[in-house]
This record gives sequence, structure tokens and C-alpha cells, in this order.
Amino acid sequence: MQFKPIQDFYPDELSYCYGCGRLNEHGHQIKSYWDGEETIAHFTPKEYHIAIPGYVYGGLIASLIDCHGTGTAALASYKNENREPGSLPAFRFVTASLHVDYLKPTPIGVELELRGKVIELKNRKVTSEITVYANGIITAKGKVVAVQMPENFIKKEK
Amino acid sequence: MQFKPIQDFYPDELSYCYGCGRLNEHGHQIKSYWDGEETIAHFTPKEYHIAIPGYVYGGLIASLIDCHGTGTAALASYKNENREPGSLPAFRFVTASLHVDYLKPTPIGVELELRGKVIELKNRKVTSEITVYANGIITAKGKVVAVQMPENFIKKEK
Repeated sequence: MQFKPIQDFYPDELSYCYGCGRLNEHGHQIKSYWDGEETIAHFTPKEYHIAIPGYVYGGLIASLIDCHGTGTAALASYKNENREPGSLPAFRFVTASLHVDYLKPTPIGVELELRGKVIELKNRKVTSEITVYANGIITAKGKVVAVQMPENFIKKEK
Repeated sequence: MQFKPIQDFYPDELSYCYGCGRLNEHGHQIKSYWDGEETIAHFTPKEYHIAIPGYVYGGLIASLIDCHGTGTAALASYKNENREPGSLPAFRFVTASLHVDYLKPTPIGVELELRGKVIELKNRKVTSEITVYANGIITAKGKVVAVQMPENFIKKEK
């Protein structure tokens, strides 16, 4: 596993995402790495991230899939160009579409594992499949279509 | 518009959802109502619910669509049985699948409006389409397949 997660290579001004920005102190700060040919991230939901007592809130699962999907897109794009993460120009993706199938209830109180596979990388678009595991059991599967962020998308802080 | 949102009729033990439970003090507490033939909910993201500065985090949008979808499913099920919301047995849905298309960046700092339409209500399953508006402009569209919660799904608190 690579030592530093892809999110730690995002430029500062693109590191405030509630799901994965290292500079968003209120957010989830998820971290995505390569693990062989797959990408991996871990997250332990807070006790209040529930849908009903005992089970994780589906909206949080969607959020984790979303951010691990855009992280996977960035990881795959550097790899595709045979470049080190963090080398310039930086890759940063936004989500065009997100699909989640909730297969089983996800128990609260355990660390979740997200594993990503790149399905397609074409032009400025990366499609990935993200699988969510709790206690080694698949509880949700997602598909994320991520597109490279347009240059003019960034509102500079005044 | 109906005076009381569907989430305020959920039984107490099913009212801890991070997205829409009235008893989850950490959560979003979204509220879904009928508005004519559609359902409606409003939510103003916090300043830290961003993807990048200026724009709402897609994971939050997915969460709102998710909960307004399950709320819409409950509203539609009472209506289908010609029953008042809150009459017994209570309807409470979980999400089987969620799809979101992010059409435009959603600006932060404004109240979002979610409007729901029921596409299909069959057996214990309700499919709805949810549209997200910011400043009157559609920024995201979602589809939620919600299924009635199995009776044995509820872990009673000890």
C-alpha cells in the first residue's frame, strides 16, 4: 500500500471537501490508497451516523462511495500517465453520477472497508466500481462516474 | 402544503436517521411534505458542506435525495391506502438503491429545494424521482428505490 493517500496530494484550495478534504475539519477526511490493482479506504462511522439504531445511514455510505470514487479516479489518472501522485498538473475529479445498491444492512460500530476498481478511463472521465465491506461482508456496491474538474470551476477565495 | 412532515409521524425508535430523524440531534433533520401531487423538502447546507469552495458537497446532495426518497415513499403509501400519515401500522422505508446525476454545480449559501415524484408504487416498493433546485435552477436529479422496512430489521434498544 502506498504510504500517502491521494487526498493528501490535492492542492490546498481543492482540499476542503466535506467527504475527503484534509483541510475540512468538520468532514470525514477519508483517505484513498492503491492496494495492488484496487484502491482502498477505511472509515469508521460515528455512533450517530445511523439510519435506525444498529445500522449505518445510507447517505453516509453514498458519501464514502462518492469520495472514494473521485479519489480512485485521480489515482488511476496518475497511473495512466505514469506519473507520481502530486506531480503537476494535479488531477482532481468531480462526480457526474453516482449509483448505490444497498445489499444488506451495514452494522454500526465497525470499521468499513471500501475497495475500488477502475472500469473505464477515457478522456477526462473515469468510471469506477466501489464495494463496501463491514466485517468482511459486502453490504453495498456503488458505481461512480467522475469527470476531471474544469479549470474554471474553482472559485478563488477573495 | 400539509402542516406536519412525514418524518414527524415516524415511530420514536425509527426517528434517529442521520438524514431525517427528528431525534438525531447531530443529523440533518430534513422534513418532507406533500405539495400538490409532488413532495417537497428544503435544506440549507452548512458552510462546511462543500466539495470545493463555493459548491455543495455531492455526498450531501445524495443524502438529501435518499431521505426525501424514503419520506416520499412513506407519504405515497399512506395516500395509496387512503390513510392519514401516522395511522397504524406505520410506514417506514429503507433505500434499496439510489442514483444521482449531478447536472450542474450546486452553489453553497442558498436553501435547496427537493421535489419528489412517485414513479411506481408496487407491493412493498416505491420508486421516486427527486429533483434538486438551487435558486430555482435544477442542479441534480435522483432516483430512489425504497422498500418497506422488514419487521425484524429493528434492533430494540436494551
